[in-house]
Amino acid sequence: MDLREALLTIIPDAERVTSGESALDQHGRDLSYHIPRRPDVVVFPVTTDEVSRILAFAHERRVPVVPFGVGTSLEGHVIPERGGISLDMTRMNQVLEVRPKDFLVRVQPGITRTQLNKHLTPHGLHFPLDPGADATIGGMAATNASGTTAVRYGVMRDQVVDLEVVLADGSIVRTGSMARKSSAGYNLTGLFIGSEGTLGVITELTLKVYGIPEHIVAARAEFPDIHAACQAAYGIIGSGIPVARVELVDEHTVAAVNRFRGTHYTETPTLFLEFQGTKAAVEADVALAQEICREEGAVAFRFETDSAARHELWEARHDAALAIAATAPGKRMKVTDVCVPLSDMPEAIRRARETIDRYGVYGAILGHVGDGNYHVEFMVDPDDPDEVAVAERINDEIVRFALERGGTCTGEHGVGTGKMRYVAEERASVLPLMRAVKRAFDPRDILNPGKVFVLE
Amino acid sequence: MDLREALLTIIPDAERVTSGESALDQHGRDLSYHIPRRPDVVVFPVTTDEVSRILAFAHERRVPVVPFGVGTSLEGHVIPERGGISLDMTRMNQVLEVRPKDFLVRVQPGITRTQLNKHLTPHGLHFPLDPGADATIGGMAATNASGTTAVRYGVMRDQVVDLEVVLADGSIVRTGSMARKSSAGYNLTGLFIGSEGTLGVITELTLKVYGIPEHIVAARAEFPDIHAACQAAYGIIGSGIPVARVELVDEHTVAAVNRFRGTHYTETPTLFLEFQGTKAAVEADVALAQEICREEGAVAFRFETDSAARHELWEARHDAALAIAATAPGKRMKVTDVCVPLSDMPEAIRRARETIDRYGVYGAILGHVGDGNYHVEFMVDPDDPDEVAVAERINDEIVRFALERGGTCTGEHGVGTGKMRYVAEERASVLPLMRAVKRAFDPRDILNPGKVFVLE
Repeated sequence: MDLREALLTIIPDAERVTSGESALDQHGRDLSYHIPRRPDVVVFPVTTDEVSRILAFAHERRVPVVPFGVGTSLEGHVIPERGGISLDMTRMNQVLEVRPKDFLVRVQPGITRTQLNKHLTPHGLHFPLDPGADATIGGMAATNASGTTAVRYGVMRDQVVDLEVVLADGSIVRTGSMARKSSAGYNLTGLFIGSEGTLGVITELTLKVYGIPEHIVAARAEFPDIHAACQAAYGIIGSGIPVARVELVDEHTVAAVNRFRGTHYTETPTLFLEFQGTKAAVEADVALAQEICREEGAVAFRFETDSAARHELWEARHDAALAIAATAPGKRMKVTDVCVPLSDMPEAIRRARETIDRYGVYGAILGHVGDGNYHVEFMVDPDDPDEVAVAERINDEIVRFALERGGTCTGEHGVGTGKMRYVAEERASVLPLMRAVKRAFDPRDILNPGKVFVLE
Repeated sequence: MDLREALLTIIPDAERVTSGESALDQHGRDLSYHIPRRPDVVVFPVTTDEVSRILAFAHERRVPVVPFGVGTSLEGHVIPERGGISLDMTRMNQVLEVRPKDFLVRVQPGITRTQLNKHLTPHGLHFPLDPGADATIGGMAATNASGTTAVRYGVMRDQVVDLEVVLADGSIVRTGSMARKSSAGYNLTGLFIGSEGTLGVITELTLKVYGIPEHIVAARAEFPDIHAACQAAYGIIGSGIPVARVELVDEHTVAAVNRFRGTHYTETPTLFLEFQGTKAAVEADVALAQEICREEGAVAFRFETDSAARHELWEARHDAALAIAATAPGKRMKVTDVCVPLSDMPEAIRRARETIDRYGVYGAILGHVGDGNYHVEFMVDPDDPDEVAVAERINDEIVRFALERGGTCTGEHGVGTGKMRYVAEERASVLPLMRAVKRAFDPRDILNPGKVFVLE
């Protein structure tokens, strides 16, 4: 009996256990330049029990299983390097329970963040994490995603109080509780988060949610140079202003966005800022932030007070990647994701721009400046070995600088296959521990094999 | 060669490798009612290399090693249940590097939080976590401590970006980087934090630090009942006010504090509040918080604006435990530490008071109401089996309610030996994974053996 036929005995629904060409194609790639590789079969479970039975089967037969959300990962995480089953979680996308009085929500992993927020709005709540893509919550947990609001709300790992996880052998575990904090034993919740599907398949998450802010103000602060923009950002953070977003874009990136969206933002290093809270507090925060920006040499501080202009600003920020993509149809995206100590960020960004200019590459630079995490986004033709080699050299220079300064090769995108060699270097001393954990959790190496680190 | 003589070959300093009576006594107990048990020898390492050599030796000889800070733990964590070496880390108490521009500090584990803050003040920085006791930073990391400011700043695990850890066999690893966030492989930093010395000995920590707030206001909001106080707290949190502290004390606890400290706080359920930030934002936050408290039925809202009155308020809060202790000289402290979903807190606290009243026990109830974590503190004579049995029954009722409501048996104190049986229940499905991790990290079970869970 072939794999699909065998799986049909577990889920007797041909539409949910498919080897159709388009399904295999869709589940063989992510958003990036990484080389696609199709799974043998795509399965769409709808219950935890189905996931459990599929994993028990895969464990027995030693078939690789790769969890799949909406495929917005950027480092090849969801590409089934060794074939097997792509486990598409998007039909497990229910909000199971909104607990407004507990500021918690219990969801299935296949729900996307915008779907989730639609459910939360009537309760006066929101889930603030925003990695740009409309990723699934399960995928965001798998990579410990974060994005523009991490400076205020933290990363994905900070939001999750409980997980239901199906282990490699099909057993079902629950890692946490409905308590907002706990010291009850080893932090397995935090271990599964960021493990990129290599330790278990997340089938349920309980997340912290937040009251929708009474008042939101967005602003652009324009600077003569990157250094001044960074200094202003650190001044704002150091002052204790609970800034919700503080994003750095360089002048070339603003230019790309203007071309792509027809906006008229001044083409100079700019901080995109957002303040959230009560009206009076926000007004006070904005006034102080404006003063700090002026002191650091800001040439302009422009408000986007109404929600349309604010929406436009963050769309523009999110679209920087698309603006770059639009310049090179047919090519695929390459995005660096280093995170450096805050004080190294101006130099890191200056060098990153110098590097891509030197290689004659057209790219955007976007910085989560409150975290020291920035992205260089540019386009690569995966079929052109020279272009791929240049992309790797650019990435290598950027990562090298980050590691020299005590940073990390990935602030939020995760490792996948794309950053394995850097993780091997950056986390060299703990690789044996990671391998020991993997062997303990997944002794037959069926869960997203070949990702994060080399097991042997 | 006996144990001490053997250790003296590694650290040839009789003063730092001691079997003196007072040292053995001091390292055989914590702050709580748990039965003391002396180690065979106390070692005071001063370098990571010494820790490494001691562990390599202990690993070879299968000698238990229990890391020790200042002994403020409350669940027997530091009591050497199987004898062996108590590894006193307090001479490794240096600030290794303050990086003000990165909002980071690198410290040795034996520094206490007040010592650390003395070093940070000249840089305009502070480390806000405040578990009450002046614990060591290493001890706070080992138990994932938090305290009154967790509602704003998060728990210990949220503060640590990098650890140096000596493993059971003496090897030295580094788990993180100087980046404020990272998705580079499994979250071993978060796994070591809260592992209570059972997976490795922390020898260095890199922590996030924060700008000293420009303005701080403390206040007391007095309510007719616990429920109204809780509702006000959730209203404040839901409004988006970034409240720095929101502590609930019941009327009996206020009375105990008044007797102990000679204060004249109104003896009614009260929220102790603190607001931090820029002056204008704090003023706005306070005004809104006051309005919310009034709406929820607050009978008074009293400010402690000057730093002396504010200090007095938090001293009073911290001293609630001492106030109870003062009523029973010679007895030892028992403290429950459950954390429940926020909406269950009023009922949890009402029942907890009903429980201790029913058993005729005099105790304080203190709630980190922003987290759903509350403590019942009362005194026990460890030599009186009846009294110990009553203490266990009280604890059992309180924990039972928390677990029924989806909470946790420990919000911040950790497991030690005192909560092992509850963790076995609460985390039943993941106990096999915890055991697998322990075996992988410490195959000879020398690191704080007999804690957190039963290994076999």
